Amino acid sequence: MMDTISLPGPDDVLAAAARIAGHAHLTPVLRARTLDDAAGCSLHFKAEHLQRAGAFKFRGACNAVWSLDGAAAARGVVTHSSGNHGAALALAAASRGIACHVVAPEGAVATKLAAIAGYGAVLHRCAPTLAAREATCEALRVQTRATLVHPYTHHDVIAGQGTAALELLQAAGPLDVLVVPVGGGGLAAGTALAIAQASPSTRLVLAEPQGADDTSRSLQAGARVDDLVPDTVCDGLRGLLGAPNFAILDAHRSSDGTPVEVITVDDADTVAAMRRMAVHTKQLVEPSSAIALAAVLAHRARFAGQRVGIVLSGGNVDPDRLPWLS
Amino acid sequence: MMDTISLPGPDDVLAAAARIAGHAHLTPVLRARTLDDAAGCSLHFKAEHLQRAGAFKFRGACNAVWSLDGAAAARGVVTHSSGNHGAALALAAASRGIACHVVAPEGAVATKLAAIAGYGAVLHRCAPTLAAREATCEALRVQTRATLVHPYTHHDVIAGQGTAALELLQAAGPLDVLVVPVGGGGLAAGTALAIAQASPSTRLVLAEPQGADDTSRSLQAGARVDDLVPDTVCDGLRGLLGAPNFAILDAHRSSDGTPVEVITVDDADTVAAMRRMAVHTKQLVEPSSAIALAAVLAHRARFAGQRVGIVLSGGNVDPDRLPWLS
Repeated sequence: MMDTISLPGPDDVLAAAARIAGHAHLTPVLRARTLDDAAGCSLHFKAEHLQRAGAFKFRGACNAVWSLDGAAAARGVVTHSSGNHGAALALAAASRGIACHVVAPEGAVATKLAAIAGYGAVLHRCAPTLAAREATCEALRVQTRATLVHPYTHHDVIAGQGTAALELLQAAGPLDVLVVPVGGGGLAAGTALAIAQASPSTRLVLAEPQGADDTSRSLQAGARVDDLVPDTVCDGLRGLLGAPNFAILDAHRSSDGTPVEVITVDDADTVAAMRRMAVHTKQLVEPSSAIALAAVLAHRARFAGQRVGIVLSGGNVDPDRLPWLS
Repeated sequence: MMDTISLPGPDDVLAAAARIAGHAHLTPVLRARTLDDAAGCSLHFKAEHLQRAGAFKFRGACNAVWSLDGAAAARGVVTHSSGNHGAALALAAASRGIACHVVAPEGAVATKLAAIAGYGAVLHRCAPTLAAREATCEALRVQTRATLVHPYTHHDVIAGQGTAALELLQAAGPLDVLVVPVGGGGLAAGTALAIAQASPSTRLVLAEPQGADDTSRSLQAGARVDDLVPDTVCDGLRGLLGAPNFAILDAHRSSDGTPVEVITVDDADTVAAMRRMAVHTKQLVEPSSAIALAAVLAHRARFAGQRVGIVLSGGNVDPDRLPWLS
């Protein structure tokens, strides 16, 4: 649902960067000779798995929380998310000392819920359906008059997510291409804005699971595909592309009108890329992050010899999925 | 076996630091709020798992290689190691463009052997006994006239390993205590020298597997225990304390004559600490590294409120031990 709020623009990313400075970490850019050799290009990894709360999501949540005027802030924020956004919003709200309500479905991962509660948010459980999440969230919003901060369609969330790419472009120097994962499209749309702001000649490539390829199909069709049932190991990329996210990405075309390129990736390649990251860089990233490296490795010719930026979006792997470490 | 070579001293660590600058990475010092809270002290992690070849071992190997005069360098280096030292020496030799021979026993981990060969060393296989390793190595040394660079007793290796602690002390500011793992004692003895050089008031604590506690027993007895059969998940800490390593550690006493403190750690605690590192810092470290954090967490009272330095010695986990990533 497209609401009446205007779409964020390139300058909103700059404003977000100023707003979240001092709250969000300025994460490092990692290099790995072995992976450069394997990929046949030079890779510059923006380490958002080292961001506060373990994912880039803190940027958007923090921008949304600190954009509120005093009266709105006093009423708090509310969202529905059982994953990184819930934890990010909880921590962002704590950074301003305001209330945060998080609606999470039954069956959500226990460690993620513990993180949300650990940051001081109030958890509200609901049935594991999108309808139940939205209804519970709306009831809470009406009751508390808190501001709804949607995980990826919110104006300030999109602008905030763009700051990761902005910092990467500033730190790594000119990049031929930027590769980011796409699920709901908060990071993808924010990155498009950051490119428009800071480096219009940089190509944007999105990496999407084959089992959740609505963005690929939407951008090809020129209209949102919203009837897909996602099936992928990338738990952070199961959301369908949001309406404002589609609008921003659909408008982000090269000078000859070519739409944004989407590479769809097989889950097995994503898990192999996660393994490569662990072995060669000692960094633990979630599948939803490793997919960007997998996209490059599966299409070497498209990146040969280029300077490639990759946003490692997060590192919140379910510990139960790491048996050796349990 | 103690040979006639003199023991390295504190100034040798300074000389090593100058020698390896530009070859070894100046690795970052990592912080983690969640782990500080869990430990009740402030932890400063020297990230040697991000060192070249994935472990602090590159420091000692590099110092040894670059200490050779031209004639000796032309004859190359030789060692026996199926682990991090073999890869480190191979890479160090490559950095100077000299020959490297590595003796590795049958049954060694395939990925480690591939790394050694990948750095350009000549691999020599032998039977999986210490006697076979030493005999094969000695025969090669005589045949090639290459210099033997022992994994932990070599003068320049010990001095080189001390540079990790030196950099940590320089980067983190005054530390109350430094905790490092101990196996053969290259890192432990080098760290003792670095403390003597740069921060004599810093307490040295060694972390040792309960199933390989020869250092603990040796320092208590005042004589090397050399008949222990190690049994631990920490594959980097199965070597018995070397003679020069014992001599340096035995001499490193507090002003009232107290010997260096050794904390013995249960393997289960080590694996739990490895998991904590992965979950809270997204860093993949080997068990032989995680043991230092485990030691602190198991004895909080000894470190309460203190500024604690930890050398994360390496990150070369056998990929087959990470099933989810395979």
